[in-house]
Amino acid sequence: MFEARLQQADVWKKVIDAIKELVQEATIDCSDTGISLQAMDSAHVSLVSLLMRSDGFETFRCDRNMSLGLNITSAAKILRCASSTDSITLKAGDKADTITFIFESKSKERCAWLTSLDQEKVSEFELKLMDLDVDHLGIPETDYKCVIRMPASELQRICRDLGQIGDSVVITVTKDGVGFSSTGDLGSGKIKLSPSANADKPEESISIEMSESLTMTYSLHYFNIFTKAAPLSSQVILSLTADVPAVVEFPIEDLGHIRYYLAPKIEDDEA
Amino acid sequence: MFEARLQQADVWKKVIDAIKELVQEATIDCSDTGISLQAMDSAHVSLVSLLMRSDGFETFRCDRNMSLGLNITSAAKILRCASSTDSITLKAGDKADTITFIFESKSKERCAWLTSLDQEKVSEFELKLMDLDVDHLGIPETDYKCVIRMPASELQRICRDLGQIGDSVVITVTKDGVGFSSTGDLGSGKIKLSPSANADKPEESISIEMSESLTMTYSLHYFNIFTKAAPLSSQVILSLTADVPAVVEFPIEDLGHIRYYLAPKIEDDEA
Amino acid sequence: MFEARLQQADVWKKVIDAIKELVQEATIDCSDTGISLQAMDSAHVSLVSLLMRSDGFETFRCDRNMSLGLNITSAAKILRCASSTDSITLKAGDKADTITFIFESKSKERCAWLTSLDQEKVSEFELKLMDLDVDHLGIPETDYKCVIRMPASELQRICRDLGQIGDSVVITVTKDGVGFSSTGDLGSGKIKLSPSANADKPEESISIEMSESLTMTYSLHYFNIFTKAAPLSSQVILSLTADVPAVVEFPIEDLGHIRYYLAPKIEDDEA
Repeated sequence: MFEARLQQADVWKKVIDAIKELVQEATIDCSDTGISLQAMDSAHVSLVSLLMRSDGFETFRCDRNMSLGLNITSAAKILRCASSTDSITLKAGDKADTITFIFESKSKERCAWLTSLDQEKVSEFELKLMDLDVDHLGIPETDYKCVIRMPASELQRICRDLGQIGDSVVITVTKDGVGFSSTGDLGSGKIKLSPSANADKPEESISIEMSESLTMTYSLHYFNIFTKAAPLSSQVILSLTADVPAVVEFPIEDLGHIRYYLAPKIEDDEA
Repeated sequence: MFEARLQQADVWKKVIDAIKELVQEATIDCSDTGISLQAMDSAHVSLVSLLMRSDGFETFRCDRNMSLGLNITSAAKILRCASSTDSITLKAGDKADTITFIFESKSKERCAWLTSLDQEKVSEFELKLMDLDVDHLGIPETDYKCVIRMPASELQRICRDLGQIGDSVVITVTKDGVGFSSTGDLGSGKIKLSPSANADKPEESISIEMSESLTMTYSLHYFNIFTKAAPLSSQVILSLTADVPAVVEFPIEDLGHIRYYLAPKIEDDEA
Repeated sequence: MFEARLQQADVWKKVIDAIKELVQEATIDCSDTGISLQAMDSAHVSLVSLLMRSDGFETFRCDRNMSLGLNITSAAKILRCASSTDSITLKAGDKADTITFIFESKSKERCAWLTSLDQEKVSEFELKLMDLDVDHLGIPETDYKCVIRMPASELQRICRDLGQIGDSVVITVTKDGVGFSSTGDLGSGKIKLSPSANADKPEESISIEMSESLTMTYSLHYFNIFTKAAPLSSQVILSLTADVPAVVEFPIEDLGHIRYYLAPKIEDDEA
């Protein structure tokens, strides 16, 4: 028996939206420590890894380890049926061939300011499970040379903007800042961010930790897919080392994170 | 001579929008008691019936009964040219081959808070009338076993959500509440509403009057078209009886209503 | 060396958006008096003319006259990468084959209310220049018989609305007001505006200066393209004379204007 409840259906909506363009089918692994998911995109170029710790859920129960094969596209359809203020419970029996999503609108007692419209509605959706080949990939621990923390929405904006210009983004990290650049038929673009601290709004600060400077090229196509996760997090953490897959991490408050791994492009230096 | 004026062009916009996906051509019947329209969709599966009583209009004059054949798609185009705060007058001569829509922005005197942008504009659109076969259908009075009142936007949301799952909605009414469910390839969904009264916001309450419980199946495709009328009304009234067409009624404040009739699907019990 | 800086990147965004549907390539002429652009649409039916005076820029330097051939579509892509609150600098070397767009987010000192998100970002985009045939057209000075000033958004709305009805707009100017009408398969539409002064909001007033009344027909297709410039200006100035191209002018505050010229259609009087 697996059952996990969160106050905000929104979190699951954003998690599945962050995955669904990369992978259409994936296995959720449930254990008493929480939920995890690991999957490569269909082109086997990038990897997404989700972790949601059990102690971040309102209630969490998992009697024995389970692997639930999900059609991510279908799960996204079902999650669109939740209001963002609904609570959400995921539930599966021990040898279940379905997973149940339960959306409950807040009851009057808990949440007096809500309109009655939301008060008396319970939705239950059953999604058929799939038999999927599970294919766990060891991700080697790496001591990254550059770790950049910046607003997630800013990274999303930069990748979208450079997507107007070219197919690749060259990321250059120095002590002075981080640069994102791209070149294409129409010309070129280069965006530079300087480190900045914002005591009032720490989520808007930009920080760079680095042991050596670096210039690497990545696929903008994939970065634009990864940054679909931006609504999940105020900050994104970019961990980079030359010739090693980059990690783009979106922390999920109280629960864990979603991480994307992408190898750099092998190209002549564009700097 | 027919002439009918309303303060809010918005009402006509919403009425025509509520009809235009079901029927592309229809006859408006004008008499001194008001305006009515009755039409079947092109597949002859459902029926829409509109009533706007003369006493709900600001001014209303209809010297003799008239049947005006409208191209609903063209009427919708013309109504898009009205601002929602414009007043609207519909006008047709006795043997007219056109109907005139007049949109007037509010004058300063009447409505001091409006910007001058809207003050000095009068628009007149003439729409060619059509010769349509008029085909009045007797709708038998039925004593419905179940009458559900609920927020119109909630029914719209439910039909939209279940449309992600399947083609049919099974409506189950018991004393405890009303359930909407659907089944499809990806799995199934079931949404339950419980009766609730909201003294502060009566438009958000859910009430069920029933003499016997009921489970019937309807086409979600048609329900999704009917609920295009949701912007017209805060509440919708669902009247159901086994093996008799359901009525989905959207009251139009002070004026009348728009009603949709749809026969249940003959299917094996899905419960 | 050419370099021109504006506080609001938004102005350039709107200027290029106002041009890009009419012409895909055009030459910007830079001199010490400012920037100008003149181009015919690809069908050689209408003319657009832009003027931005040097004294309206925050800083402006143009050592010698330059003609910069721009791909307008590409320039629009680059300008989409600016935030509307960014400052913008255009820059080109004397024999440059590129033009540089520099977007800078406001620094803390200048603009304390801005979030730090915008503080430490500088973007530089280089756009390749094109060799274009320059084709300056003399626009004869005309003493227009009718000059109408009205809210730019109102003209945009009227052209969009009449576009539902027909392909041409008949503009009729009398002392009492200005009428816009169109006829098509579904019927006809006529919109009348009366002169109105609004002391509080002069940008919403409608004024008509005329020495003789006039009825002329123009292509709605082109008027709908011209009114893409409406975001640039609160008021639009329509200058009309029988059998002479109309001028549709959108003033750009402190800088100059964008003007569109369009010859009337030769048609039978539709009045």
